[in-house]
Amino acid sequence: MDHSHLTEKTIGSEEILKGRFLHAYRDTVSMPDGTHATREYVVHPGAVMVVAQLDNGDLVMERQYRYPMKAAMIEFPAGKLDPGESPLVCAQREFLEETGYTAREWARAGLIHPVISYSTEFIEIWFARGLTPGQRCLDAGEFLDVFTATPADLMAWCRDGKITDAKTLAGALWLQNVQLNNWTLPW
Amino acid sequence: MDHSHLTEKTIGSEEILKGRFLHAYRDTVSMPDGTHATREYVVHPGAVMVVAQLDNGDLVMERQYRYPMKAAMIEFPAGKLDPGESPLVCAQREFLEETGYTAREWARAGLIHPVISYSTEFIEIWFARGLTPGQRCLDAGEFLDVFTATPADLMAWCRDGKITDAKTLAGALWLQNVQLNNWTLPW
Repeated sequence: MDHSHLTEKTIGSEEILKGRFLHAYRDTVSMPDGTHATREYVVHPGAVMVVAQLDNGDLVMERQYRYPMKAAMIEFPAGKLDPGESPLVCAQREFLEETGYTAREWARAGLIHPVISYSTEFIEIWFARGLTPGQRCLDAGEFLDVFTATPADLMAWCRDGKITDAKTLAGALWLQNVQLNNWTLPW
Repeated sequence: MDHSHLTEKTIGSEEILKGRFLHAYRDTVSMPDGTHATREYVVHPGAVMVVAQLDNGDLVMERQYRYPMKAAMIEFPAGKLDPGESPLVCAQREFLEETGYTAREWARAGLIHPVISYSTEFIEIWFARGLTPGQRCLDAGEFLDVFTATPADLMAWCRDGKITDAKTLAGALWLQNVQLNNWTLPW
């Protein structure tokens, strides 16, 4: 499909923030009608999220304080890609570091973009099964609880607003459709 | 539940970016173990998203170029809150401006947080029905296509990666569970 009537073309780009974590640019773009506009956005290395099920079907979840929310949030385990790291290697590393589990089987579900209007971030969703518990190894200054929940708990918490994290809601969409046999995972 | 073993307390805050669109802060926080850390985040006014169904069940969708993605993305209609604006008024305004539709009935589904690690953004999800088409009225410099899709189209596009926008995936989760009679909307 031709999207040229929607497409914005880059004319210029300047760095507007080089923080310790946030890195942002302001680009000048040419709009479809030839007028100019500015676009400001955060550059992000990308991340992975892990939907992991124990042999009894329970899910490995985390509770972590998220400072911009001023609240402890329930989430699937996730983490940012290191430079040059493949998403699967990142998924395995973060899952082990944060929860202590290793998994015998992994399947890539899909890709999400959490904030398409002002960040380049993507998150790959991976499923894991055949779990073996072990010792977690949090980064210095990392504090999070690991716990298990049933898929029914997960769905009730999404419905009731106890889970509002968008990546975790996307994981719930995948899990539900896999369980309904609507969607198939490439194990 | 007591989350004090996870909670980070604010010690200081400085503005690190006052852009035309992005507004960011770097806070110094006290971690649960008493050590200090920095947290950088974008401040956002909040937004609404509209899951609107025609009388035949089809959904009102948009295709819009999202510059950080360098792609035209399929989304549910959405927009940012104006200062002091209630989410419902914002939903009705943005839906009319972008699509031309008005709706007879509105129901609040839930709340999502697209990027809990580095933005204060929230998005309220509203459902709309009893639609009447009319004339849309895009802001200057706004370019987007409006089209309709069946719920089956929506779910297939979420599965196949044609839809990767996290808010739209969360809307699909709500729609599916409403259609399955798992979740109820307060019409």
